[in-house]
Amino acid sequence: MTVTARIAHYVTSTRLSEIPADVRHEATRAIVDYVGCALGGARDESVERAIKALGPLSGPKVAAVIGRPERLDTLHASLMNGISAHVQDYDDATPKNYIHATSPIASALFSYASSHAVSGADILEAFILGFETTSRVGDCVYPAHYDAGWHITGTVGTIGAAAAIGKLLGLDDQQMAWAIGLAATQAAGLREMFGSMAKAFHCGRAAQNGYTAALLANEGFTASQTGLEGRRGFAAVASARYDLEKLTKGLGTDFGLRDNTYKAYACGLVSHSAIDACVQLRNEAQLEIESIVSMTLSVAPLVLELCGKKDISTGLEGKFSIYHSAAIAISRGKAGIAEFTDEAVNDPPVLRLRNKTSAVVDDSLSEYGGARLKIKLRDGKEFEKHVERIPGSLDRPLTDQQLDQKFSEQALLSLSARHAEEVRKLCWKIEQLEDVTRLTTLLATTKPE
Amino acid sequence: MTVTARIAHYVTSTRLSEIPADVRHEATRAIVDYVGCALGGARDESVERAIKALGPLSGPKVAAVIGRPERLDTLHASLMNGISAHVQDYDDATPKNYIHATSPIASALFSYASSHAVSGADILEAFILGFETTSRVGDCVYPAHYDAGWHITGTVGTIGAAAAIGKLLGLDDQQMAWAIGLAATQAAGLREMFGSMAKAFHCGRAAQNGYTAALLANEGFTASQTGLEGRRGFAAVASARYDLEKLTKGLGTDFGLRDNTYKAYACGLVSHSAIDACVQLRNEAQLEIESIVSMTLSVAPLVLELCGKKDISTGLEGKFSIYHSAAIAISRGKAGIAEFTDEAVNDPPVLRLRNKTSAVVDDSLSEYGGARLKIKLRDGKEFEKHVERIPGSLDRPLTDQQLDQKFSEQALLSLSARHAEEVRKLCWKIEQLEDVTRLTTLLATTKPE
Repeated sequence: MTVTARIAHYVTSTRLSEIPADVRHEATRAIVDYVGCALGGARDESVERAIKALGPLSGPKVAAVIGRPERLDTLHASLMNGISAHVQDYDDATPKNYIHATSPIASALFSYASSHAVSGADILEAFILGFETTSRVGDCVYPAHYDAGWHITGTVGTIGAAAAIGKLLGLDDQQMAWAIGLAATQAAGLREMFGSMAKAFHCGRAAQNGYTAALLANEGFTASQTGLEGRRGFAAVASARYDLEKLTKGLGTDFGLRDNTYKAYACGLVSHSAIDACVQLRNEAQLEIESIVSMTLSVAPLVLELCGKKDISTGLEGKFSIYHSAAIAISRGKAGIAEFTDEAVNDPPVLRLRNKTSAVVDDSLSEYGGARLKIKLRDGKEFEKHVERIPGSLDRPLTDQQLDQKFSEQALLSLSARHAEEVRKLCWKIEQLEDVTRLTTLLATTKPE
Repeated sequence: MTVTARIAHYVTSTRLSEIPADVRHEATRAIVDYVGCALGGARDESVERAIKALGPLSGPKVAAVIGRPERLDTLHASLMNGISAHVQDYDDATPKNYIHATSPIASALFSYASSHAVSGADILEAFILGFETTSRVGDCVYPAHYDAGWHITGTVGTIGAAAAIGKLLGLDDQQMAWAIGLAATQAAGLREMFGSMAKAFHCGRAAQNGYTAALLANEGFTASQTGLEGRRGFAAVASARYDLEKLTKGLGTDFGLRDNTYKAYACGLVSHSAIDACVQLRNEAQLEIESIVSMTLSVAPLVLELCGKKDISTGLEGKFSIYHSAAIAISRGKAGIAEFTDEAVNDPPVLRLRNKTSAVVDDSLSEYGGARLKIKLRDGKEFEKHVERIPGSLDRPLTDQQLDQKFSEQALLSLSARHAEEVRKLCWKIEQLEDVTRLTTLLATTKPE
């Protein structure tokens, strides 16, 4: 049995009842966070443009697009879902290999779910198996594959999406091996695209291409039996170094979902420590923004390298400005999507505070886990805060309640409050839903712009 | 101006009238050969299965699929055209970098042409510019990219298809740079898939993904400005070694089409010398197949490594059997698609001759340019033939008449004789066609199975 065949067989044969409860709960958390992110990103310009370009080529419009009124064929809906979910850089990830596994897989699954009679348990089962497939292929090629410049979410996400949809289609072992091969041979996405719409496109395309691979395999369209491990297979071709053992070691007992983390703030992880210091200090000291005379951040070198811009005017630039991130976090006590809009960046009091903010490099701090903040008030008072571990990390995971809050803030960008609340509840009990139609219908029942 | 921007500008600004006449003629030859190959492959099982799997998801059925009665949306038609064109391993290629550039590009173009009002000159112009783009990106990353295991037709073909469709859409410089970036970031295809349907899928997907990239860019969907040459761009990420200078050196004066070659036989190039020796000897000596007592081939080591199988039963295996290739070439004086069917492989006299055929390794022979054949007849007569250069190579190019013959044999598999002949004539005068509707209509006017 080839390695690809072993993974294929694991996916075809494993049932949800064999998955440990903690993994099923983590999968549910991932679904809640995913749906929130997709609702939060659904009105982004990139989604608008993709729908304008490709919507006219849609086949039967049977599938819902999360957070959008349009219906598209299942493949195009997968693509749009994936763009929405990833475009705010707010979706979950496994820090061990930098993969946002949930977004490509769930984007395909929610497209499927909106157009087929399927239970929530089936969706969760397919999601967990797709996640595990993605996670293992990612572990196999990480870090060389990522370091070379591949956007690993786009590449290995394709393979997980194929496994997940293949599971729902009921592929047999041979077809599943073909689906994995057909996905592996479509795996693509260059990190050079970061900073453009193409980054989120990778995630959407992974969903769409994985879905396509499963459909083709289902009709007997053949691929190599050794798409992952062969001499010219995915691992060898797309990674200078790789460890094939990671593809199957502990299969069925170890689960990538246990390493999944959720972002507390809607920007790159390097800014999270500083933002968190601001949020904490604001809440503890009940700071009035207008009373602040100066604010000084000490951060790791990489933070200033990536986010050292102060003279900015757009929300996207705000995500790459530690000054804006800190100023808005002090002002609002949070840093979600609404804190990185053009309006937020140009809000006069926030702008004034940004100009009173300075940042210095402290080599002793790590980029993903440390920042010091010092604030001086008009009355002479001074406050300090030191953050060591960022919220949302494995050491300091977001609670279910925090996920709820993150969900609601994003969902309200696309749904009415009543619908957002119902969707949230349905997501949490996805495993019990005999039919997901109500959920997928609500996801496309958008409020007016 | 970035390298990607320079290529983009070259594509947007160059007119057919600036292309040298010999290049335009070679482009026309490539179109003739392409259409023949697509007609020859259109009834392959892989195309059937792909249409069965994805046809139900087609959008507006405005585009013709070459050699098929079905109409599909432009993207799916591009995919099917590309599978048909490549599935018989009979399509043209540039030996300097192993790229089958025509198939992905022309597959997208013929889909576009069948659903838009466009002149033959516009198609030819877009084709030449797409070919040049593919050729240059291929030269830049060859051989390291190919040696690593990438199916270079699938990867760089995507970029040429994007350039060609982008040209027809009238993209401006910025949009064209995005289209190239969006294509580069989708470039994929593993050589591990060789021997399965996924190999031809790469070619079809390159057409479809390139087309998609152009549509997205046309609506302002952004990508990196340095998709080809950036630190995390296509060349650096997908190739251990590369030469960026080749992307632009001689742009406008040197043309990849001048290195294009056309296959004389419908199988891998390593068998072509032996086949050609058989064809030549048969014609010179008027050999009767039943009079042959023994046939001995001397070939390069790689030939036996790749094509050493004698006990075979399918047409596909026949393509990888030097024994069948020689036996059928002696029997029929040619080795087109019809000579590699299950019927041909199991034809009793051919099978008997195959069993009388032996092959020995001669280290002095090169795999792509040498074979010796020795034949003994029942009456004691002996014949020998030594082939040094294969027909269809740059040294011994197929004549326009030979291309015609190859075209007709393939076209007759899908079209009536009358239609095949009309299509052939229209292809040759594509540059003069004010409207290609008659051509694209005939391509989908298939004879009964």
